[in-house]
Amino acid sequence: MPSEHAPETIEGWYALHQIFTVDRAALRAEAPSSLEYMRDRAAVALGELASPGVEGWSAVVPLVGSSADVMLLHFRASLDELGEAQRRVAREPLFDLLRPLYTFLSVTEAGLYTATAQLAAEAATRGGALGDATYAEQMSQRVDAERASAHVKRRLFPPLPSEMPYVSFYPMSKRRDAQQNWYTLPLEERSRMMQAHGLTGRRYAGRVVQIITGAIGLDAWEWGVTLFARDPLDFKKLVTDMRFDEVSAKYAEFGDFYVGRVCPPDEWVASLP
Amino acid sequence: MPSEHAPETIEGWYALHQIFTVDRAALRAEAPSSLEYMRDRAAVALGELASPGVEGWSAVVPLVGSSADVMLLHFRASLDELGEAQRRVAREPLFDLLRPLYTFLSVTEAGLYTATAQLAAEAATRGGALGDATYAEQMSQRVDAERASAHVKRRLFPPLPSEMPYVSFYPMSKRRDAQQNWYTLPLEERSRMMQAHGLTGRRYAGRVVQIITGAIGLDAWEWGVTLFARDPLDFKKLVTDMRFDEVSAKYAEFGDFYVGRVCPPDEWVASLP
Amino acid sequence: MPSEHAPETIEGWYALHQIFTVDRAALRAEAPSSLEYMRDRAAVALGELASPGVEGWSAVVPLVGSSADVMLLHFRASLDELGEAQRRVAREPLFDLLRPLYTFLSVTEAGLYTATAQLAAEAATRGGALGDATYAEQMSQRVDAERASAHVKRRLFPPLPSEMPYVSFYPMSKRRDAQQNWYTLPLEERSRMMQAHGLTGRRYAGRVVQIITGAIGLDAWEWGVTLFARDPLDFKKLVTDMRFDEVSAKYAEFGDFYVGRVCPPDEWVASLP
Amino acid sequence: MPSEHAPETIEGWYALHQIFTVDRAALRAEAPSSLEYMRDRAAVALGELASPGVEGWSAVVPLVGSSADVMLLHFRASLDELGEAQRRVAREPLFDLLRPLYTFLSVTEAGLYTATAQLAAEAATRGGALGDATYAEQMSQRVDAERASAHVKRRLFPPLPSEMPYVSFYPMSKRRDAQQNWYTLPLEERSRMMQAHGLTGRRYAGRVVQIITGAIGLDAWEWGVTLFARDPLDFKKLVTDMRFDEVSAKYAEFGDFYVGRVCPPDEWVASLP
Amino acid sequence: MPSEHAPETIEGWYALHQIFTVDRAALRAEAPSSLEYMRDRAAVALGELASPGVEGWSAVVPLVGSSADVMLLHFRASLDELGEAQRRVAREPLFDLLRPLYTFLSVTEAGLYTATAQLAAEAATRGGALGDATYAEQMSQRVDAERASAHVKRRLFPPLPSEMPYVSFYPMSKRRDAQQNWYTLPLEERSRMMQAHGLTGRRYAGRVVQIITGAIGLDAWEWGVTLFARDPLDFKKLVTDMRFDEVSAKYAEFGDFYVGRVCPPDEWVASLP
Repeated sequence: MPSEHAPETIEGWYALHQIFTVDRAALRAEAPSSLEYMRDRAAVALGELASPGVEGWSAVVPLVGSSADVMLLHFRASLDELGEAQRRVAREPLFDLLRPLYTFLSVTEAGLYTATAQLAAEAATRGGALGDATYAEQMSQRVDAERASAHVKRRLFPPLPSEMPYVSFYPMSKRRDAQQNWYTLPLEERSRMMQAHGLTGRRYAGRVVQIITGAIGLDAWEWGVTLFARDPLDFKKLVTDMRFDEVSAKYAEFGDFYVGRVCPPDEWVASLP
Repeated sequence: MPSEHAPETIEGWYALHQIFTVDRAALRAEAPSSLEYMRDRAAVALGELASPGVEGWSAVVPLVGSSADVMLLHFRASLDELGEAQRRVAREPLFDLLRPLYTFLSVTEAGLYTATAQLAAEAATRGGALGDATYAEQMSQRVDAERASAHVKRRLFPPLPSEMPYVSFYPMSKRRDAQQNWYTLPLEERSRMMQAHGLTGRRYAGRVVQIITGAIGLDAWEWGVTLFARDPLDFKKLVTDMRFDEVSAKYAEFGDFYVGRVCPPDEWVASLP
Repeated sequence: MPSEHAPETIEGWYALHQIFTVDRAALRAEAPSSLEYMRDRAAVALGELASPGVEGWSAVVPLVGSSADVMLLHFRASLDELGEAQRRVAREPLFDLLRPLYTFLSVTEAGLYTATAQLAAEAATRGGALGDATYAEQMSQRVDAERASAHVKRRLFPPLPSEMPYVSFYPMSKRRDAQQNWYTLPLEERSRMMQAHGLTGRRYAGRVVQIITGAIGLDAWEWGVTLFARDPLDFKKLVTDMRFDEVSAKYAEFGDFYVGRVCPPDEWVASLP
Repeated sequence: MPSEHAPETIEGWYALHQIFTVDRAALRAEAPSSLEYMRDRAAVALGELASPGVEGWSAVVPLVGSSADVMLLHFRASLDELGEAQRRVAREPLFDLLRPLYTFLSVTEAGLYTATAQLAAEAATRGGALGDATYAEQMSQRVDAERASAHVKRRLFPPLPSEMPYVSFYPMSKRRDAQQNWYTLPLEERSRMMQAHGLTGRRYAGRVVQIITGAIGLDAWEWGVTLFARDPLDFKKLVTDMRFDEVSAKYAEFGDFYVGRVCPPDEWVASLP
Repeated sequence: MPSEHAPETIEGWYALHQIFTVDRAALRAEAPSSLEYMRDRAAVALGELASPGVEGWSAVVPLVGSSADVMLLHFRASLDELGEAQRRVAREPLFDLLRPLYTFLSVTEAGLYTATAQLAAEAATRGGALGDATYAEQMSQRVDAERASAHVKRRLFPPLPSEMPYVSFYPMSKRRDAQQNWYTLPLEERSRMMQAHGLTGRRYAGRVVQIITGAIGLDAWEWGVTLFARDPLDFKKLVTDMRFDEVSAKYAEFGDFYVGRVCPPDEWVASLP
């Protein structure tokens, strides 16, 4: 049995999700002047990270209904710049009074399942193989075309969705059990399921924006899903609908969920005790 | 194989379960005057949360037989108001001396399995499909009728059951294994099992009140079950009977259980060392 | 497929297992007079809990070969009285220097599998059903007879076994896998396996005493097993034999094991640094 | 389906594995005189435990390549004497500056699979049954003979292997899955696999010494394996070979591994900061 | 069913991966002179470990996108020398202000699957068996030849790849489920899958360097994979491609992933607060 083929993917910004709890007792134990100093510079730092001099952005998402208190989102063009954002946060004395609870490293991803399946089928028709010279040339053209499309650009270099302040983030992986193994399914079958799954998401267009990030080779979980919505009830509606999609029902494993509402950095800093 | 359909659901109040342990050594280390100040304002805060100016309520449930010490329950009309209740608790210095052990975010839910299965069957009879215009119109009428019914109102906007002071809370999910996958079962089969499951609950009418909250898209667990009883032995009797229901025996996964007895906020605060 | 039936059960005392580690550094850091004060009142409190004015008893079990240091056992007639015992322990300043590691809430239980299976078979013979009026009346008589028997009384209201100072406690559940699901087995099959399992236990009569407590609806684990023995090697012999019983081999899941030796409260308090 | 039979076993010394991490910051924070006092008496205590006035021995094994720092091994003739050794360690102030990470309670065990299978076969031939009077008498003679053999004595009362300073310890259990269940296999099949497994071990005679301890009824894991070797690479070679043995490949579950090198107590104490 | 055979392996340097979090609050609480003292000597110690007087090397890898902050890599010729490197780090007061989060002990390994399968096939052809005298002699020659080859030397005694500063480390094991059990597969089948897996790695030659270390008998995970790349996106590309290899898709279990960038010791020390 030959191994199955990975779909072609295009990557954009590196992404970092940082989830913290606040040590309120420690905050309250600080002298007012010391705390004010910490707050002021943290607000400046988070503000600069939100609109860095380089590509990308950061956002502050106070959490609701979680044991954690706040999630920071960072998108940057390179791993080094992402590391710089992370170190910038770590240098802030205010963050000595927060404890990191969970951290997720990934990179924005557009999966070209349909294109991969089409070109593989064409290769079979012409007696060639997935990965041969003709396939490689055709795929290279497709990748260039996709990269240039506005739709793919929005997925690889996503803006912070305005007027959709609610956020739900969760990591996920595809199952590799003996009887339900995503990684041994034929390419066409995976392509078909991903296409149907995409239609479920499209029914929520205008109500929910999804940022999909890939983490294979970078994290124990394989993907991150960061949802933005106008109404948080749409997280429940969308994720429920998706859980009945064949690809999720049979092949998805989910991590923890973190729900919150985007907040200007200075407002969040001011809300701390 | 097409994906199966989610049942129609109606949602009401957002719900937050907060479970804390008390750091008794820290409490005892506080100066009496400081502790009294903390207690007094915490009693006021919890009292105001219990009967907030807005829709909903909060309750204090000291736990028995758990490593945790107390559970707070909050029901509110919006995620923002729920977040406000959570921040109100966090602002109390007394809660610096408690440690959050577990937190669960969900929203009250009435699942319309029977209606969904009926309208889907009718759609099939008339040659239509679940989700087509006729179906959507019929479902919209059913949802409106259900929302208006006293029975559904009690499920979406549940009062704190008086004379049923004992509480048992646990989160749960439906199984998605290769051989026992709730999310790949046909709608009618799920509808049949949920109906039988409901009958088990009804045998305990007048003895146990159930609040069912949905958490898909909001939490790693998919549902929360909050039981209230006159006699705590009925938790054992009811949950045992339900565990033999086909839907639980084959498709339910359970989290931890938290058992306690509702207590006026000021009494609980006074009981701390 | 109809759901299977739960066996009839009779319950007695509520039970609480509390497992603690001792913070020896904190104990040694206390001033001698303060420590003596703590010790003295803790010895008094534990002594009073051992022989409370109400029904039931408590015991102190220093552990051997565990990361935890001591287990407290409490049996009381009601959940409220059990909660009172728990709060009595929590009020002791000495217990600020111990950390709770594990806690298990349950209630003594006698399962009437044989009676349930017999009456169900009779009901089938007479064309009736498990749970109909005749069955209910017959079962009610059986329950009354069982409750009055010395054998069942010892299971529901167990004395602290004298001359059997060694203790082994572990929680357990019945498996609910697709291929090995206790909760979908026919009543007669479960009854047969439980009867055979009981015979294994009876071979150790006079050497090992078992207290079985049920925890469905109260705890994540479904049962607690508290063994008392004259010779701790009998824990190994008995549990090994039982692990080969069909009911355990195929359907049992086990939690952690805690082994120790019952000790008078004042001796245990005196043994602390 | 009748339950399968447990093999006869003979037990010897009780065993305790204690694994600690060192709180180096706390050690360095101690005044030099206080630290010297702690070190001196700890060296004395560990030295006395190594060669106690009673049967058995203890050893100090500083760990390499583990988050933990040191493992103490204790073998004693009774659970009470083992508990005394544990309390002796706990009484040392130096151990207030170490944190227990893992603890494993067990008892040395020689499993008589071959004898059990033989006598069971003979019983079947003569129309009797495993456990009948003839079987019991024959087994009693076999147990006596085994107990008297030098080979079994070395397994039940193992000396600390000299010239084999490297140690690898891990707990393990036998699998009880629906499709791979050790506890439902016929006695002869288990006997056959254990015999083959023993041959793998014998190929390492003179290079690796194994101490097998049983923990059913005492610990969540069912057995402990403590290996001693002249060359630590033999741990990798032996355990790899064994992992391909049918009994391990299909039926073994492993816990964490702890690797180190035996060290005289006073040298270890002197090596602390 | 006879047990399957382990492949012949050759081992080289022992390896230790140490992963730490930095306690920034504790660092900032140190007096500047004390901190400078700690930094200076830690920089010296890490510099000496990087180029020790003995065989092997160490490296400092600050992590990006992880809850941990830094990974230390150590390669040494013996377990004792590896232990000495570990103790050298532990003696540094600066490391009192870091907390060990994860530690992995292993040894570089070259698996001779192809040679083992070939010689086993030849043995079968000549009517002999894997492990007989002829096989042993032939294998001994093959091992000597492999050990002498530059390719195998690079795998057993790997230099720190220059111009490939990015690192991704993760532990892994082979699956032992009833339906997907690596350890019960015939040798030829394992050999075939490992060969195909090797081809995937070779497609990344010049872009990604892999160090494979074996940990059976030393750690709960069976292997460690330490990848070095010029472009961190190649971690995602390579590991994704490999996840579709039959050997990974069906038989691999993965631990956590740690991603970072190699940094001179003194630069890392200087970057701390």
